[in-house]
Amino acid sequence: MRNIKLTIEYDGTGYHGWQSQVNAAAVQDVLCLAIKKLTGEEIILTGSSRTDAGVHALGQAANFFTASRIPAEKFAFALNSVLPEDIVIRKSEEVGKDFHSRFSAVGKRYRYLIFNSPFRSALLRQRAWHVFYPLDVDAMEQGAKHFLGMNDFKAFMASGSSVKTTVRTISDISISSFPDPTLALEIAGDGFLYNMVRIIAGTLVEVGYGKIRPQDIPDIIISGDRKKAGKTAPAHGLYLMEVYYRTGDGSLFDNWLPT
Amino acid sequence: MRNIKLTIEYDGTGYHGWQSQVNAAAVQDVLCLAIKKLTGEEIILTGSSRTDAGVHALGQAANFFTASRIPAEKFAFALNSVLPEDIVIRKSEEVGKDFHSRFSAVGKRYRYLIFNSPFRSALLRQRAWHVFYPLDVDAMEQGAKHFLGMNDFKAFMASGSSVKTTVRTISDISISSFPDPTLALEIAGDGFLYNMVRIIAGTLVEVGYGKIRPQDIPDIIISGDRKKAGKTAPAHGLYLMEVYYRTGDGSLFDNWLPT
Repeated sequence: MRNIKLTIEYDGTGYHGWQSQVNAAAVQDVLCLAIKKLTGEEIILTGSSRTDAGVHALGQAANFFTASRIPAEKFAFALNSVLPEDIVIRKSEEVGKDFHSRFSAVGKRYRYLIFNSPFRSALLRQRAWHVFYPLDVDAMEQGAKHFLGMNDFKAFMASGSSVKTTVRTISDISISSFPDPTLALEIAGDGFLYNMVRIIAGTLVEVGYGKIRPQDIPDIIISGDRKKAGKTAPAHGLYLMEVYYRTGDGSLFDNWLPT
Repeated sequence: MRNIKLTIEYDGTGYHGWQSQVNAAAVQDVLCLAIKKLTGEEIILTGSSRTDAGVHALGQAANFFTASRIPAEKFAFALNSVLPEDIVIRKSEEVGKDFHSRFSAVGKRYRYLIFNSPFRSALLRQRAWHVFYPLDVDAMEQGAKHFLGMNDFKAFMASGSSVKTTVRTISDISISSFPDPTLALEIAGDGFLYNMVRIIAGTLVEVGYGKIRPQDIPDIIISGDRKKAGKTAPAHGLYLMEVYYRTGDGSLFDNWLPT
């Protein structure tokens, strides 16, 4: 049995998220069905991230074991020929038997798009959050910097979630024009709590229109109180960009952790 | 009666083009219905450009006469509240009685997006033409320059079209990364023949993969032979970006004609 890793792009609009659902289309199920069409096998496809309904991915990672003889790198082309238009495999490769797309991940990078204009956008309606009040990008950048480093992000987790620890390290965060009037929040870290990126995006938008001051962010983090952070930004502005894995020799694939 | 000009964005995916159709959804019809909801009037909405099914717009222009008392600049917000998500009015303004969005236009700017990657894109599937063979962007830029200026573009018009003259002036053409691996062909001119931008895009893609040489473009133009030009690029990569009008004093709104 070989272990195959897939790098996956999808438009989340038409799906009830990554994970298999009863009576609802999930990206995972569509991929399993496509793999079955090619190999005849009922496989278990492990994803790195259970993206919510409406969330997009440019670099979701997943892996499965197969007895098929299809060369690893050919799975991408073969699967793309049977997948619907809103899901595409960008890369397929053989990985070690101990590779697990979720437990082997050492970090992730997300993008959150905000369409900041008095008018909504027809073309970006399922691709970016429409915020109609003008945002102070400088204030948002100042606020964003306070998220850097290792912190207890309990205040930025959807209430009711249960995890062993709410401590995470944000290694990179920035806000850029993408292009005007769309703003892109880019955020990378060793892991993210449930809804964490969307709550950070919602909080920074509240900084952008002056409801929260940039210098208030550290206190919100310290409080551990979900109610002190901003609203959860909608799913359709979020993109899972990349999942990072440690290489066999202990170095990172990518020098993704800026100092 | 006041003459109101609208600047319109739409996602062309769900429509059979701009112009009213029997038994098919057209952008024009949806706008007329929205105006009727607001004013109670059955108006005639004149568009600057009859975009085809699947073609998008960021700056389509249209005008209509109304007896309503709604302030001209408020039409945008009011219409957006009743329009579907894939159509949005970006600006509404009162214009002179003799303004006609089609006949008063002195130029147009289009963008054509090409997603140049071995894999198709899930997120851009209705937004850019997927070309999987690698394109030589330098060759495409060289080829593009030959379209500049006043020429008889008969070879770049869908066969069967009838117009008084096939002479048009291209004032600006460029190819840029938007961002990688998406290429944007930007093209502006005093007017475009039926399918002209899509045939130019298709021809430049054939230059990009070496089927047509850049220096062959002048001969193709001179030939006036549609069969010598490239294939018509698909509708879903095309965007009507802006329509230019002469101001009352004879100058252009925008110094859009580079020398």
